[in-house]
Amino acid sequence: MLTQISAAACHGGTVLKLAHASPLLGCDMKLSVFLPAGAALRPSDAAVDAAARLPTLLFLSGLTCNEDNFITKACAVRTAARLGLVLVCPDTSPRGLGIAGEDDSWDFGTGAGFYVDATEPKWARYQMFSYITRELPALLQAQLPVDPLRMSIFGHSMGGHGALVCALRNPGTFKSVSAFAPISNPINCPWGHKAFGGYLGTDNKDAWKAYDATELTRGYSGPEVPVLVDQGAEDSFLKNGQLLPDNLVAAAASNPRMHLEYRLHKDYDHSYWFIQTFIDDHLEFHHKHLTA
Amino acid sequence: MLTQISAAACHGGTVLKLAHASPLLGCDMKLSVFLPAGAALRPSDAAVDAAARLPTLLFLSGLTCNEDNFITKACAVRTAARLGLVLVCPDTSPRGLGIAGEDDSWDFGTGAGFYVDATEPKWARYQMFSYITRELPALLQAQLPVDPLRMSIFGHSMGGHGALVCALRNPGTFKSVSAFAPISNPINCPWGHKAFGGYLGTDNKDAWKAYDATELTRGYSGPEVPVLVDQGAEDSFLKNGQLLPDNLVAAAASNPRMHLEYRLHKDYDHSYWFIQTFIDDHLEFHHKHLTA
Repeated sequence: MLTQISAAACHGGTVLKLAHASPLLGCDMKLSVFLPAGAALRPSDAAVDAAARLPTLLFLSGLTCNEDNFITKACAVRTAARLGLVLVCPDTSPRGLGIAGEDDSWDFGTGAGFYVDATEPKWARYQMFSYITRELPALLQAQLPVDPLRMSIFGHSMGGHGALVCALRNPGTFKSVSAFAPISNPINCPWGHKAFGGYLGTDNKDAWKAYDATELTRGYSGPEVPVLVDQGAEDSFLKNGQLLPDNLVAAAASNPRMHLEYRLHKDYDHSYWFIQTFIDDHLEFHHKHLTA
Repeated sequence: MLTQISAAACHGGTVLKLAHASPLLGCDMKLSVFLPAGAALRPSDAAVDAAARLPTLLFLSGLTCNEDNFITKACAVRTAARLGLVLVCPDTSPRGLGIAGEDDSWDFGTGAGFYVDATEPKWARYQMFSYITRELPALLQAQLPVDPLRMSIFGHSMGGHGALVCALRNPGTFKSVSAFAPISNPINCPWGHKAFGGYLGTDNKDAWKAYDATELTRGYSGPEVPVLVDQGAEDSFLKNGQLLPDNLVAAAASNPRMHLEYRLHKDYDHSYWFIQTFIDDHLEFHHKHLTA
């Protein structure tokens, strides 16, 4: 059950910090939510009127982030309020499980769940793929005016990878998907090798491919899903081979079911300064597909 | 001399983190700056072309803040870029002077300079009024395309007080002034008693009045300066008597030279969620007066 930590008026709606116990992850989890004017958190035993349910956008954050970064820094609330979109910003990993070494790396463990369901016994509680695609949506639909038939997903960096993977592995669940500077081909980059090796095992390359946006794009056979990807040309992680968007673009070009628009922006880096510059384009893109 | 710590593209312009040694304050100071498209930081020995100078807005932050809060959380860059405004966000106090007790309070000392020139010997380096109105503008004009004839000032809470005081004590310097939830009458609230008592001495009530926006408004005789004040009705600091905007409004009503618009907003609190909701109104207000 979602409980309210704080609430603040913003652009005619409300920014909420919420918490809940996660049986799946074995810890308490937090999330930030923006509800447009008139929408509210309700006790879970009260049915939310279907007519009041709103199109909803999930944002998955990147390495080291939590539920605060996007809602605080992306400047998304103004346009979400105007378009009547619910924004949901979950955390990036379980917290405080007490696993040895969980806080030792900024790119593995706490803050770095990589949106996979871990199979290595030590990290068995790291089930962020199922958290984002099953546990969290059920909670949202029970207490918030979230329309399960009108959901889209987007994210940044590790969260861009997560958004693409959640959408491509669940055909029909999300009306559209977009990403800022996604880790597009993790099976071929250092971050992916470390995360997938740790969570899925170093030898289980089939499991790695099942969480790789480029591989999933190449083999996708579900309903057509529109994809928008923005990338900064001065992004240091692009330059050092962590993001590999060209591989994603090539895979999409090879698959007639994929409609991917890729935009490379001169001068921009990997930061929220980049995200806030193009956030309105993403909100408008999703709104168009959520209300089509 | 201003040196660059970092730079990032944002909305076609650049967000800069800058630093400089402050002879006045006796420490290094940082600031955040947004420069619209085409503008740049230059070495101080190169003259900045007068024709390239842009209208400029100084934002003074509140208690506990530094140069990051406004530029990160207020969502001001998009509209500043569109209007061609330079944004300058200084820090709120000297840092690391080694004064006994400087870090003991969140509302006095570090992060709480209150934009006064301290007269108590222990705090003699706390010269934030002179920093904002003299030292910083000279640095900006030497290396940035800031137009000294087209400057306005605004701020939040302690910084709203600071903006009003800087404008009212320097008639003609700023084209317009605005504030979010300003400490409007510090000589009559607990924050003001603590700060003015500590920096100016407990018995020097004439010095207190010289830094009180309500007192300055009542006696203002300079050129007409437009003032915009926004306040959230659910602001806990309004409710517990720290802000006292009604006293400022009454003082303005008693002085025909003052043109103050005061807006009380149902539901809003003291946070940056409130600021970001109304930031575009403030940017448009200042732009109108800076380009009239």
